[in-house]
Amino acid sequence: MLLLAVLARAQPTKQTIVSPQINADNTVTFRLKAPTAASVKLKGSWMKDNEAPLALTKTDSIWSFTTSRLAPDFYRYNFYLEGVELLDPANSYAERAGTRYESIFIIGGPSSLYTIKAVPHGTISAVWYPSPTLGMNRRMMVYTPPSYLENTTKKYPVLYLLHGAGGDEYAWIARGPVGAVLDNLIAAGKAKEMIVVVTNGYPGQIASPNAGPVNSNPQAGVNNMGNGRFEKSLVSEVMPFIEKRYRVYTDKNNRAIAGFSMGRLQTQHITNANPNLFAYIGVMSMGLQDNNRLHIFNQEEYDHQLNALVKAKPKLYWIGTGKEDFLYSSVVNLRKKYDEVGLHYEYRETEGGHTWSNWSLYLSELVPKLFQ
Amino acid sequence: MLLLAVLARAQPTKQTIVSPQINADNTVTFRLKAPTAASVKLKGSWMKDNEAPLALTKTDSIWSFTTSRLAPDFYRYNFYLEGVELLDPANSYAERAGTRYESIFIIGGPSSLYTIKAVPHGTISAVWYPSPTLGMNRRMMVYTPPSYLENTTKKYPVLYLLHGAGGDEYAWIARGPVGAVLDNLIAAGKAKEMIVVVTNGYPGQIASPNAGPVNSNPQAGVNNMGNGRFEKSLVSEVMPFIEKRYRVYTDKNNRAIAGFSMGRLQTQHITNANPNLFAYIGVMSMGLQDNNRLHIFNQEEYDHQLNALVKAKPKLYWIGTGKEDFLYSSVVNLRKKYDEVGLHYEYRETEGGHTWSNWSLYLSELVPKLFQ
Repeated sequence: MLLLAVLARAQPTKQTIVSPQINADNTVTFRLKAPTAASVKLKGSWMKDNEAPLALTKTDSIWSFTTSRLAPDFYRYNFYLEGVELLDPANSYAERAGTRYESIFIIGGPSSLYTIKAVPHGTISAVWYPSPTLGMNRRMMVYTPPSYLENTTKKYPVLYLLHGAGGDEYAWIARGPVGAVLDNLIAAGKAKEMIVVVTNGYPGQIASPNAGPVNSNPQAGVNNMGNGRFEKSLVSEVMPFIEKRYRVYTDKNNRAIAGFSMGRLQTQHITNANPNLFAYIGVMSMGLQDNNRLHIFNQEEYDHQLNALVKAKPKLYWIGTGKEDFLYSSVVNLRKKYDEVGLHYEYRETEGGHTWSNWSLYLSELVPKLFQ
Repeated sequence: MLLLAVLARAQPTKQTIVSPQINADNTVTFRLKAPTAASVKLKGSWMKDNEAPLALTKTDSIWSFTTSRLAPDFYRYNFYLEGVELLDPANSYAERAGTRYESIFIIGGPSSLYTIKAVPHGTISAVWYPSPTLGMNRRMMVYTPPSYLENTTKKYPVLYLLHGAGGDEYAWIARGPVGAVLDNLIAAGKAKEMIVVVTNGYPGQIASPNAGPVNSNPQAGVNNMGNGRFEKSLVSEVMPFIEKRYRVYTDKNNRAIAGFSMGRLQTQHITNANPNLFAYIGVMSMGLQDNNRLHIFNQEEYDHQLNALVKAKPKLYWIGTGKEDFLYSSVVNLRKKYDEVGLHYEYRETEGGHTWSNWSLYLSELVPKLFQ
């Protein structure tokens, strides 16, 4: 009796609202119960950045909206109640995006790669490492593949995965999503077992906005993007930490690095300056641009570095971008430059723009090409 | 230039609202910008369960409320906008509580134990283990202490930590919070380094509501509490998994188990049936009640088990409860029974009730007593 009372207290009020409801034709119905509200809107990741939020309509006490048919993908959305952003209270699946939270859902098909299935799972760990260079202990996320805990002698290759501006060390984990993509590709025999290391690319930040000291300013340390300090720390601190504490191969043929946008810049800084560390390099959604504002950039040094990279002959230099990416022309510039200097690369052009839809897709396409 | 454009796109709109604002006198001011709303309310964990949400008042476009002075603690709260629950958009610190999300803050003093500080940190891992008994792979969380990754020969004792009804394998991690409490106690020399294993106590659930398959019913498998199947799985599957895959001592003097409410029941089921597995036992916020509805319970078996437990002489049998806990009388019954049969226990009675304030406090008081 008492136990039933505990259960009754602990359970949330029975939620009779179903939202999101993924209909048989892949339209999606959203619902919010808000009897006294004057306005409920919705913004989702299938919409354009500059598209105004959609207005829901009210029937009895329930506001609702049904989309047109959505393509298979991993989607994010929020409601706006009287203009204030909120999660969908009926959907317990949510992820943090920087300092905000977003409700999520998946339309299946190929995108079922992005969800937990009944396959062997790797372990995802929040690991803190000392960074004397940056003057702090910092958090990173480490994915170890399904066999890692069981097979205590096997060694693995490592992929270092870098996020974009506004992201942090949890972004690829939440939104890749690294765990499901790797687990599902490995289970299908499409990818080698590998360790994936996801760092925080802001040299001033100790951890993602909800994983540092509670009450602290979540944006503290979000600055100095591309000043080269994170890049130095990755090579001199993160890599030695991983290579000492995890069972990994330490030759270039067993190291990969990839990033999008800001992480693309950092990937290039790192691989241009250290042409023999990584045999697999992935740059996504950004190319070659006016680097004059950034650290250590001069044309002579850049050309010198590129020549060394050409000579190092990476096994894979992968470039991906969306046709509608607002940085598309910088990718055209990068390919032109690489064609000039003779740096071989594989090029993948997709629909869409500067979006997580593309970064998840690129992850799922890049990982099978690594360490083969 | 392009890079600055990326940054500008990726950053959320500059948030000028400060909320929560912890004032010098430990009152706290909450603010929400909602110009067109007719009603904004607030419910926080410093309030009684049955207390009505507090009404905020509007000045210009900003709704606000200032509490009276709050005692040091880890607090949770939500806004209600037109009756709809939402996170504080100005606070990026939030945690999931079952199927809901709550904004959080800390008032310092002793509660600063509950936040990340500049001390060595342990690793928190999401680990999946096979459970043939329950017919699925299941997720658990494993805290390994700061030296674990570095010192590859050292062995550690293990604390198994069980949650209450409505919780899951992430509840103690988010709301203990296990990482900060252990890190800070270890750094202060007040606790031994130990591994902490946090399981999901619902035998039908594969993972916490936002960590399973996206789109799935988060409440699937939340049933059959106390039917004994989870308890069997912990002993026959979780413990062997941990003892095989982590560097741990495997004698009873290096094993502890503790839980509150539903996890208290499970802790007692496990330790009553297996009196020689754990030398340290902690039961929180629930005692002895009418077990007739639960599995395997009959008085003769119970008395027989208790006698065996008395003979096993646990090094510590710790009982904690709040004076206002609605299950307080069941704890009185438990102590009476233990006094009768001669089972020695340590008793801790605190202010307050059936709350995370107490479970965090009990964790911080119990951990220093373990493995000493």
